[in-house]
Amino acid sequence: MQTTPTTTDTASPGSAAYAPTDRTVPTRARERASYDRESVHAILDEAYVCHLGFIRDGSPVVLPTLYGRVGERLYVHGSTGSRPLRMAGTPQEGQEDPGLQVCLTVTHVDGLVLARSAFHHSLNYRSVMIHGIARQVTDPEEKRTALDALVDHVVPGRSTDSRPANAKELAATAVLSLDLNEVSAKARTGAPNDEPEDMDLPYWSGVVPLRKGYDALVPSPDLAPGIEVPDYLAER
Amino acid sequence: MQTTPTTTDTASPGSAAYAPTDRTVPTRARERASYDRESVHAILDEAYVCHLGFIRDGSPVVLPTLYGRVGERLYVHGSTGSRPLRMAGTPQEGQEDPGLQVCLTVTHVDGLVLARSAFHHSLNYRSVMIHGIARQVTDPEEKRTALDALVDHVVPGRSTDSRPANAKELAATAVLSLDLNEVSAKARTGAPNDEPEDMDLPYWSGVVPLRKGYDALVPSPDLAPGIEVPDYLAER
Repeated sequence: MQTTPTTTDTASPGSAAYAPTDRTVPTRARERASYDRESVHAILDEAYVCHLGFIRDGSPVVLPTLYGRVGERLYVHGSTGSRPLRMAGTPQEGQEDPGLQVCLTVTHVDGLVLARSAFHHSLNYRSVMIHGIARQVTDPEEKRTALDALVDHVVPGRSTDSRPANAKELAATAVLSLDLNEVSAKARTGAPNDEPEDMDLPYWSGVVPLRKGYDALVPSPDLAPGIEVPDYLAER
Repeated sequence: MQTTPTTTDTASPGSAAYAPTDRTVPTRARERASYDRESVHAILDEAYVCHLGFIRDGSPVVLPTLYGRVGERLYVHGSTGSRPLRMAGTPQEGQEDPGLQVCLTVTHVDGLVLARSAFHHSLNYRSVMIHGIARQVTDPEEKRTALDALVDHVVPGRSTDSRPANAKELAATAVLSLDLNEVSAKARTGAPNDEPEDMDLPYWSGVVPLRKGYDALVPSPDLAPGIEVPDYLAER
């Protein structure tokens, strides 16, 4: 099922899919690509870390970092002193406006795919790749919303069950926003794709699924007596 | 424990640590950085996917991909038609020799860190970041070694228990190598770092560890009868 999106396939923000662009149409395995908003959101909401790519002094940098999503916008945060945060606040080479060109990628590894042939070994995975300009969030209201989203991304509901940032903490934190415009998802699922002529080879073939979920909670050693595990943690 | 590596700390390939460089010394949280070879190898050997960053038409790209390690060299592979593989085989802008400037990052998320304050929410993680030039592997012997390493990275021992690549498959596959020279590891472990004045707040605080390991094997639906689960899978 080879699908070749065309540029007439433009999507408005209200439509069900992102419009493919040159940067979001893979050269290989196009049948694994999707532009569906719901699939993209689901992949983004399930992961904890994104890999944020940007260019510093002419070299690529790939930084693992936490993120949060509010509708069609992602947020990442960091110290006001960190390099990508500072870079996003000043115009970069060849640009008039501030903003940092980024590629933000989120990946889940779901299983190890063991084929009869070495060639067809693979991973089952789901990933999202976003291209765009990351901009510093300067509006205090949006900054608060973004920081809540970052905490709620770790555990939904947690932002209302922790002490909100104070003025000093807010001043020390910079937030970048990245709009979900140029976006694609990619996934591999299912059994190995062995060649017909390999079917009788004496090698085990199949998928080793990676375990998901959480282990037992580790309360802080100095947790005050009488503080119980909140429902949003007990129910998982 | 703030450690500030200096440039006098140069490491030879035989030494226990990588030499820090401007690109591998973080501006923030330097106490989390390490240059120890053993720690770096352990982080690399435990993960399945790396995020490969490179520059294409002036924009950063972050691609999730499988990798393998042989000593102080990493390998990634792909179709000979894939963009980064092609780019690594030709001299890039401003370069005389072929090779693609990359940043390769590997990250494990180990736990969710729930502090009493929103500000101190974090993740426990281990990551490795490598800067360097990725080069196409042209020596047939090294290519074979690299492809074995990629399969054995998925499941150790698997390359000797599957059909090796044939001439057609070898010709369709390109392999890039990246030497471990400019390398750093970063990790956060342990309990939340709450502020002393927050200790009596009525919020649960602690770590939610992410579950690791594997779920039950899913054999290929067409697996021939009599093929048993190999020891290297049964023992995990």
